Amino acid sequence: MTVNQIVAILALMRRTKQEESLTLQFKLIIMIDNDPLKRTELSALGEFGLIDHLTQGIAPVNSTTLKGVGDDAAVLDHGDMVTLVSKDLLIEGVHFDLTYTPLRHLGYKAAVVNISDIVAMNGKAEQLLVGISVSNRFSVEALDELYAGIRLACEKYKVDLVGGDTTTSVSGLFISVTVIGRAKKEDVIYRSTAREHDLICVSGDLGGAYMGLLLLEREKKVYQANPQMQPDLEGNDYVLERQLKPEARADVLIKLREAGVKPTALIDISDGLASEILHIAKDSGLGCRIYENKLPIDVVTAEVAAEFTIDPTTAAMNGGEDYELLFTVNVNDFKKISAIQGIHIIGHMLEKAEGEYLISNGGSLYPIDAQGFNHMKA
Amino acid sequence: MTVNQIVAILALMRRTKQEESLTLQFKLIIMIDNDPLKRTELSALGEFGLIDHLTQGIAPVNSTTLKGVGDDAAVLDHGDMVTLVSKDLLIEGVHFDLTYTPLRHLGYKAAVVNISDIVAMNGKAEQLLVGISVSNRFSVEALDELYAGIRLACEKYKVDLVGGDTTTSVSGLFISVTVIGRAKKEDVIYRSTAREHDLICVSGDLGGAYMGLLLLEREKKVYQANPQMQPDLEGNDYVLERQLKPEARADVLIKLREAGVKPTALIDISDGLASEILHIAKDSGLGCRIYENKLPIDVVTAEVAAEFTIDPTTAAMNGGEDYELLFTVNVNDFKKISAIQGIHIIGHMLEKAEGEYLISNGGSLYPIDAQGFNHMKA
Repeated sequence: MTVNQIVAILALMRRTKQEESLTLQFKLIIMIDNDPLKRTELSALGEFGLIDHLTQGIAPVNSTTLKGVGDDAAVLDHGDMVTLVSKDLLIEGVHFDLTYTPLRHLGYKAAVVNISDIVAMNGKAEQLLVGISVSNRFSVEALDELYAGIRLACEKYKVDLVGGDTTTSVSGLFISVTVIGRAKKEDVIYRSTAREHDLICVSGDLGGAYMGLLLLEREKKVYQANPQMQPDLEGNDYVLERQLKPEARADVLIKLREAGVKPTALIDISDGLASEILHIAKDSGLGCRIYENKLPIDVVTAEVAAEFTIDPTTAAMNGGEDYELLFTVNVNDFKKISAIQGIHIIGHMLEKAEGEYLISNGGSLYPIDAQGFNHMKA
Repeated sequence: MTVNQIVAILALMRRTKQEESLTLQFKLIIMIDNDPLKRTELSALGEFGLIDHLTQGIAPVNSTTLKGVGDDAAVLDHGDMVTLVSKDLLIEGVHFDLTYTPLRHLGYKAAVVNISDIVAMNGKAEQLLVGISVSNRFSVEALDELYAGIRLACEKYKVDLVGGDTTTSVSGLFISVTVIGRAKKEDVIYRSTAREHDLICVSGDLGGAYMGLLLLEREKKVYQANPQMQPDLEGNDYVLERQLKPEARADVLIKLREAGVKPTALIDISDGLASEILHIAKDSGLGCRIYENKLPIDVVTAEVAAEFTIDPTTAAMNGGEDYELLFTVNVNDFKKISAIQGIHIIGHMLEKAEGEYLISNGGSLYPIDAQGFNHMKA
């Protein structure tokens, strides 16, 4: 079926201007088989551009809608507390490859990446709904594995599975997860509220998930070429786990609270540090500096990067899927932040005119570019 | 890729019993290419059976979780008000056919069927999140059409679009919609709270959406055989609109409130009257009688049914997608209900031992069977 055919049928529907555009009139029916609309390829806009395009000009009408499109989660005003809602799609062949992703891990990850979005608003995830579309090549036992992973994540993060919708697809596996969280209204942290001179901090280490992905991709090719070959993954558990079993850093929120630090802006790193710091900078109307020599990179990540002759800095900046937290804090919190294990100060915010740059080990300035995981351009 | 291969990779992961099942150990890697698990086909369980199977034994841990899987929407305790969450998937080739579904109508319907789930809890839909996965055969303009329909539904039902996620797929169009609604805690109506002797009521008329579907399927075949043929849809606008542009019956809730009637149980008719009344009966621990001669069937529905030599009662009972409301009321509300235009009393609830039966025009009893739109068995 082509788009032409789809558009052809559009002509079936004659719309009366006055009554808004869905009145059906089947009096005049013309079947045409060419596309009367201008055709713009999805790749021309890219993922973020497309979302901006599709959601532009949307103005909320309900008083409960505090924040719509444009942060990690939507924020709904439900009294003293706000309700946070995050929704993500995971598509076979785009977001995961079942040849090396065990279904149990996939279920776990599908839940965790959404829980991470609630954490990235400084909220607590409480409920999860999952929609799964599978073709008949999957068995009940395969779905059991997928659900086992989802349930495990729910158990770990104390989230209730409150909705399940499972349907067949013509091909492929599609997972759609919605997570509902809560926070006190005054606790919510947006990505748009960083201030000049704030310190930029990141939890854990970066680039590992991407190195795990490259390893799995390589072993897949080896396996496809010769199914008798044993995959060579020895010693690389750390980066494989980063890729196959990410965690939502709810523990970091607790540490910050205990230390008496409230970030000024907060986001989780799903698309790579570069993409995320640009979100914070642009949405806050600021510039930023990131120091290459401050980037936290695990030794295994560095070793695997060397094996692939990839600059570990590139992996950290553009790799994505680490699901660590990126946040800004007031400079006065420097001592408190420095005392927290596993938090790294990697740069600072500046006025907008200063732009967004990475300062290399050699002292050169490189503009930060949000390549990220642009599935639309892929 | 086969499930065998997928399961093969599962063997990559050795799990330690003590630490729960996601600890990765890549020390021993064995690639096997046959399925060590018992294989149960999805069709063996059916759609409802599968959801039951996958969600069995789930016990909520958060005090905010009032109702999880098993009604039109999840119910979250957020103070005086509850938050209602509904989530649905719409899959190309399963739930819709783009050869005769204009994208604008598809977007409208995707939003409406979820809004209808909130209405079916006696709530008001307030926010909507949409996830769309499309292949590159779609243009930006095609997505604009889809979004135009979603926005139109949002406008009509005063719902805010607060989240959008658009990603590529390898093939096909997948739409996942989440709708968030609210209701006063005491206003929520479940499907499980009908009482013996209650009257069974339905809004609008039934079977039309299914007749519209059959018409469109027929014209598709005609068109495929001879693209020069003009589709013969003359005079059938009503059933086509029922299929292509369903509405959520929020207006019925208002009428009921104005009449001072609060239903004892409430559900929307997405899978056909038979399937839905069985939900109410079984979840309420009751039996029921539906009278064939009371079923509201539009004259166009009856005419098209005759054209297809289909019993209009079958269309009403098992057709699905009418999105009318099915509800039960106390017998004492008989007069009030009778006075509301567009509401039909079609039967009554009995004790469980009486079973669930349709009483035909001839007076015979036929057991009600939930064939519905069982996509899993299709």
